[in-house]
Amino acid sequence: MTKILGVLGGMGPLASAHFMLRLTLLTPAERDQEHIPAVLWSDPRVPDRTAARLGGGEDPLPALLRGIHGLEAAGCGAVAIPCNTAHGWYEGMQAATRLPILHIVEATGDELARLGVAERPVGVMGTAATLAMRLYQQGLERRGWDCLVPEPGEMEALVTPAIALVKANRVAEAYAPLAEAARRLVARGARAVVLGCTEIPLGVAAGPALPFPVADSIDALARAAIRWARS
Amino acid sequence: MTKILGVLGGMGPLASAHFMLRLTLLTPAERDQEHIPAVLWSDPRVPDRTAARLGGGEDPLPALLRGIHGLEAAGCGAVAIPCNTAHGWYEGMQAATRLPILHIVEATGDELARLGVAERPVGVMGTAATLAMRLYQQGLERRGWDCLVPEPGEMEALVTPAIALVKANRVAEAYAPLAEAARRLVARGARAVVLGCTEIPLGVAAGPALPFPVADSIDALARAAIRWARS
Repeated sequence: MTKILGVLGGMGPLASAHFMLRLTLLTPAERDQEHIPAVLWSDPRVPDRTAARLGGGEDPLPALLRGIHGLEAAGCGAVAIPCNTAHGWYEGMQAATRLPILHIVEATGDELARLGVAERPVGVMGTAATLAMRLYQQGLERRGWDCLVPEPGEMEALVTPAIALVKANRVAEAYAPLAEAARRLVARGARAVVLGCTEIPLGVAAGPALPFPVADSIDALARAAIRWARS
Repeated sequence: MTKILGVLGGMGPLASAHFMLRLTLLTPAERDQEHIPAVLWSDPRVPDRTAARLGGGEDPLPALLRGIHGLEAAGCGAVAIPCNTAHGWYEGMQAATRLPILHIVEATGDELARLGVAERPVGVMGTAATLAMRLYQQGLERRGWDCLVPEPGEMEALVTPAIALVKANRVAEAYAPLAEAARRLVARGARAVVLGCTEIPLGVAAGPALPFPVADSIDALARAAIRWARS
């Protein structure tokens, strides 16, 4: 019995397409038939997660559950969600399905460990909602990494607009503000920077490599999915 | 009612992930919610299409139909298949579903027209099975383009190994043989070259742009899908 990976995506659609690409490229395979079967449910209509958490916008949980039930019906054995902010609804989703949901923050912690990042402060970039929900602060601090996050002014001027640029397909323009926000975290003592929103790695890849360790939450989740599929 | 695009992929998985990326990047959108909802059924276990057609290998049709029925169950309104060779089973698939299946050869003809390629010979690169089934020769000749295809020796030395390299994630190595095969078609009189296997655009994108018009079957199918979704 081959395991089929379910991917709840579309948040945003470019990030989930990129996740599928990285899942494929990180899988050791010589021919099609050695790759991991997967179903990507790419539903960009899911109500905005940040607006829901911070601004009283429409609750995304019903749309998230629709996707998970679609992946169940398709025969998937686990679910990966290449959207960090959606993990604010992790408990509600996990309670509604018998499928294990791979947790992107746990996967990113595994990535920090794989990169050999010492248990010292790390910087975390993400949406305002991901940071406000303390998804990384709780998940990583439990494992020994203190988290530094951008100042509110840096979020407003750099990180939030850069995420919106990627969602509008203006990927190259997102590089400079993201690189600047990451650089400031390192200047404040971060030993590595977590790209804790799946739009961020796309922007960061559009320019020169950053001169410090970065933990990419897309690659981290892809590696966790490969471990699940191969176990 | 939003239309949901079904994508029958995994043939290969890198090509279908790339299709999802191009579908997103070619869609005019400012935010997630303006993108096209899609379900990608990425099943790399589908028996090898070329082996089935040329070597008496296992028939892929049952696996293709399983995917199409999965996409129907997920609520999709049309199917796009980012694998040219699979279109050798187009009639069998279309007969088994009420969903329209966008035809990649028709879409690529539309792309040649969009590029303004005169109705003169065009070169076609594809798998040995796609060329032997005359998918492009029939589809394009009906619309006024004669087709030139690589010689058997060029298929064996250049095109077939390059496709296998992409399927094995060795994308950069595929560039030189593909560029050489395309150059030879142009030297024999082709006004443009059709990248008629969805692995080929990935290899061609890994090096300098080719100095003649190319019609990319992945982009062509993505544009056809966007027209369907927006109509």
